[in-house]
Amino acid sequence: MRTRRDVYLNDKPWEEALAEYLQHLAAKGALQPGTPEVIPTEQALGRVTAEPVFAQISSPHYNASAMDGIAVDSAITFGASDATPKRLQLGDKAQVVDTGDPIPPGCDAVIMIEDVHFVTDDVFEITSAAAPWQHVRAIGEDVVATEMILPANHTVRPVDIGGILAGDVGEIKVHPRPRVALLPTGTELVQPGTELKPGDIVEYNTRVFGAMIETWGGEPMRRPITIDDWDQLKNTIMTAVEEADVVVINAGSSAGREDFTADLIRELGTVLTHGAAIKPGKPVILGEIKGKPVIGVPGYPVSAALCMELFVRPIIYRKLGSTPPPPQTTSAIISRKMPSPMGVEEFIRVKLGQVGEKIVATPISRGAGVIMSMVRADGMLRVPRLSEGFRAGDTVTVELMRPLEEVRQTTVIIGSHDMALDVLANHLRRKFPAASLSSANVGSLGGLSAIKRGECHCAGTHLLDEETGDYNVSYVKRLLGDRPVVLVNLVYRQQGLMVAKGNPLGIKGLEDLTREGIRFINRQRGAGTRILLDYRLQQLGIDPDSIYGYNREEYTHMAVAAAVASGAADAALGIKAAANALGLDFVPVVEERYDLCIPGEFWDTPYITRLLEVMATSEFRQQVAALGGYDLRDCGGVMYRQGI
Amino acid sequence: MRTRRDVYLNDKPWEEALAEYLQHLAAKGALQPGTPEVIPTEQALGRVTAEPVFAQISSPHYNASAMDGIAVDSAITFGASDATPKRLQLGDKAQVVDTGDPIPPGCDAVIMIEDVHFVTDDVFEITSAAAPWQHVRAIGEDVVATEMILPANHTVRPVDIGGILAGDVGEIKVHPRPRVALLPTGTELVQPGTELKPGDIVEYNTRVFGAMIETWGGEPMRRPITIDDWDQLKNTIMTAVEEADVVVINAGSSAGREDFTADLIRELGTVLTHGAAIKPGKPVILGEIKGKPVIGVPGYPVSAALCMELFVRPIIYRKLGSTPPPPQTTSAIISRKMPSPMGVEEFIRVKLGQVGEKIVATPISRGAGVIMSMVRADGMLRVPRLSEGFRAGDTVTVELMRPLEEVRQTTVIIGSHDMALDVLANHLRRKFPAASLSSANVGSLGGLSAIKRGECHCAGTHLLDEETGDYNVSYVKRLLGDRPVVLVNLVYRQQGLMVAKGNPLGIKGLEDLTREGIRFINRQRGAGTRILLDYRLQQLGIDPDSIYGYNREEYTHMAVAAAVASGAADAALGIKAAANALGLDFVPVVEERYDLCIPGEFWDTPYITRLLEVMATSEFRQQVAALGGYDLRDCGGVMYRQGI
Repeated sequence: MRTRRDVYLNDKPWEEALAEYLQHLAAKGALQPGTPEVIPTEQALGRVTAEPVFAQISSPHYNASAMDGIAVDSAITFGASDATPKRLQLGDKAQVVDTGDPIPPGCDAVIMIEDVHFVTDDVFEITSAAAPWQHVRAIGEDVVATEMILPANHTVRPVDIGGILAGDVGEIKVHPRPRVALLPTGTELVQPGTELKPGDIVEYNTRVFGAMIETWGGEPMRRPITIDDWDQLKNTIMTAVEEADVVVINAGSSAGREDFTADLIRELGTVLTHGAAIKPGKPVILGEIKGKPVIGVPGYPVSAALCMELFVRPIIYRKLGSTPPPPQTTSAIISRKMPSPMGVEEFIRVKLGQVGEKIVATPISRGAGVIMSMVRADGMLRVPRLSEGFRAGDTVTVELMRPLEEVRQTTVIIGSHDMALDVLANHLRRKFPAASLSSANVGSLGGLSAIKRGECHCAGTHLLDEETGDYNVSYVKRLLGDRPVVLVNLVYRQQGLMVAKGNPLGIKGLEDLTREGIRFINRQRGAGTRILLDYRLQQLGIDPDSIYGYNREEYTHMAVAAAVASGAADAALGIKAAANALGLDFVPVVEERYDLCIPGEFWDTPYITRLLEVMATSEFRQQVAALGGYDLRDCGGVMYRQGI
Repeated sequence: MRTRRDVYLNDKPWEEALAEYLQHLAAKGALQPGTPEVIPTEQALGRVTAEPVFAQISSPHYNASAMDGIAVDSAITFGASDATPKRLQLGDKAQVVDTGDPIPPGCDAVIMIEDVHFVTDDVFEITSAAAPWQHVRAIGEDVVATEMILPANHTVRPVDIGGILAGDVGEIKVHPRPRVALLPTGTELVQPGTELKPGDIVEYNTRVFGAMIETWGGEPMRRPITIDDWDQLKNTIMTAVEEADVVVINAGSSAGREDFTADLIRELGTVLTHGAAIKPGKPVILGEIKGKPVIGVPGYPVSAALCMELFVRPIIYRKLGSTPPPPQTTSAIISRKMPSPMGVEEFIRVKLGQVGEKIVATPISRGAGVIMSMVRADGMLRVPRLSEGFRAGDTVTVELMRPLEEVRQTTVIIGSHDMALDVLANHLRRKFPAASLSSANVGSLGGLSAIKRGECHCAGTHLLDEETGDYNVSYVKRLLGDRPVVLVNLVYRQQGLMVAKGNPLGIKGLEDLTREGIRFINRQRGAGTRILLDYRLQQLGIDPDSIYGYNREEYTHMAVAAAVASGAADAALGIKAAANALGLDFVPVVEERYDLCIPGEFWDTPYITRLLEVMATSEFRQQVAALGGYDLRDCGGVMYRQGI
């Protein structure tokens, strides 16, 4: 039996694997569009023509007046001029017409009504001659019968429907939408909405795949969950191969299961590739059964989505006689060091923001299991196979997952996490539909460093000066020197110990953290909350090493709160709003000030003025207050300014 | 009563008219999204969130193994190293887990199966300690319960569906699709598929509008045609205002009718603007009845589509809590002089092609009635209100109507028209799905001039040297000097007189064109066919002025054939294929050679090699031959080359 190590030794660059795969499928006829469907032109939006569309009639189908006016035989107008006006009488060779009316027999031109002076009811005067065919829309001016309106393999747009109907073509032949069977497999999977037990995994991948396939022009066929049983899965695959044009097997999350799927495909057909040199998405299986593409997509949602994009999308487009449109890209500056393993092409989700002249890309979670990293991403950055990654300041090309214009309208805030920022983001979008707020959580010190490097429009910071008891100012001076900057208060907030509902361990303060059997979970170095903890521990004379879990770090208030809520930890220092959100008890430690630090160059820009406008609204203030543990007495107020 | 002149004196810049209109509508509450709809998350693709979506559960909702391996209490692994391997026994503190399995109570880390050496069935050895929480996906790593997954006013993408379901949210609130009533009006309108009489106009505009509105996220409600009757139209509008959120009245093609519509809207509500400073689309009406937007859109299809884009699209997006995405643009070089009237913003449809380093924009028909100008366009060029147009060589910004990547893959051919080019375009797209052919018909001499100016990859040319009887070579030498160039034959073709079926006037040759009562229609100056005609007339000693219609010019074979087919002319010189297409009789005059002239710099590029590949296929040759009047004996053969 082969081990996984053997398989992965053969990892191919994904482009090579894809090219080989498409070549194999093409040779089997598996990429040919299906038998054309005849559909009414009116329903053709987004469909792809299977044959060229030819005009049945000319448009206009008669010589038509292009103006309101008088149709004339141009010959009778010759000689008219300002000096020698000509009087004409309505009759066979001079008839009133509206725009769109047929040119009467015997006439060959139209005089605009504005250029006519009626002397009596049926006698008029003109002061210039009509050129033959002036203001006449000749037959076929738009489309001539038999002319090609659309070529084959053209995706029908709204105006195309007009062109086709102008040629009097009521039905057209289009490629059928490729049917893609989506097979979720795994004993641990449950349908959304099921009451969850530990170990249950909500099956949402095939819902994402289905929406992708619709977007690409295919027809998803989602199948029930198949448990990990050789015969059942084999039957499911065989039925799917009969019914669909393409089969996607979503392998669940177990690495062992991918071999299972690969062995099954191998029994029923051919495995072209098992394992491509990509991260995430490495265990992808490219197979073929009875002339149909069968793709094994790994279970982690980010790996899965990526494999769909890389390997399934080109098949759908090929079966529609087309190729996938290339992604929109932008060039951007990397905000921090981004190492990446040699030998695989890594796909890193990034947030983007335009800060000053440059577009800055900041990596977000690389976890293959973190679907929210796709939801939150503005773009995808590829680290080539033979690169070891990027250095801060490198210029890179990023594939856009949001329009660049939206990125340009995004206020980038980097620094400490606070839940009021979510509320701010939401109300910002409501009040200014084109604007948005992108926040990266790297802690208070990280935020000030980001300002220093020119990567954000503002930073959220709550840094206690241990000597003065004041917040933020001394850190700003130390880290940003005399750079022009304004500190605006967002909130005051309660920091305290988040503990399980009912506080079963009776934790009353930081002193209790050293007790035997109490498991703490900490925030990362550089976070204001971590600095606060260290400051208080020092005041209390507590050795951090005496706290179990002091070195276990999470990046947000919600992450540590979730650990406590799940029982993975017994206590964490964090904000009251996070404790409230997850129904935890809260032991207050201190009220602290949370400010936005705004560099002078952005102070008067919409990036900031929009935020201040939203912060001034009562809707925003009420919703933040309702989270609990907040005081908005100085919200929007300038706490400090230098150089501006 | 006001005259049209009065109204148009007030023409506003369209941005101003739109801004005033939106302000008025906002004050009336007409831009507010409707009451939110609750829909299943699985059906949310493309819908817009009406409220933020918050996670109901954390994901993962339990601490999960991130690997296949052994879950352990990390404490029991301390001390293991290469030098001091540690033996452990399976039990409470060391349990086999698969990826996704819950971490058993008492365990806090996972050792990858690859790092484990089993000594017996239940005893294994490790050579390094496990760090607490290694290879564990902590609760909430992806989403934490109560966390915001999506803000309000967000358009749902495939990955978002995954994020929402990961948070166990089965239904979400979305903005209802704005319902847009589409009212076609005009006594001359008939439904597609009707047997057409002169004066009938096929009602396809509201089909185009419907597809546009779907694309923008609205729900079109197409209504039957209303004839031009005050009371009927009034009733139709009143009903539509009750039933829909937005009402679009398509005014038919008569200029007089627009006042009719405007007066009706004024009677029922308010007209904010009648006439904007745009071309086409000037007579647009922006009105409001009972707090709902009512827009009168002019009847010509290009005017209509443009008014929908400029005035209706922003309303739909606003009602979805959003703003329209800005168009993709490219910068391009204008290929020829493009005068434009002062005082209006003109919207010119252009073909685009990448020729060498530059993207070249060539204007196509400006007729407001020519829907095919929209179908064929690659981009839209705006000539600002206070500009008189562009000069050849000016750099301009063009809004893309096709992806730039497709434009880059387009072979640009400018010159004489031949129907074999349509066949070539179609087979090119079949064989190379990403490639396309864009042809502009400016006559043979126009094509060679375009090569000289660097605007195309090749030119179609059939220019007879009156002295040698040879084709094209002497013209190439004269116009392109010693520039490297290749002449490749496309076809030989029959030129002759196209006359009505049965040849009722008994036309036997060019000599008959001077007969009394015979109406000729000519090709434009610079067309090879025109040069051929002039050459033959000179040989025959016929004075062009003795031919009625000699000065009436059309730009394509099909256009002159259509004029003959409709009875607007009795004879035209053209190719046999065009006569065949429209069922005309054909009186042969001469066989001529039609070549592609290819500049040396493009000879070895895919722009040309792809064409040559298609020209070599039997499918292409058979289909051209079937058109009639063609001989492909030299098709693809090099007829002449210089400097290469």
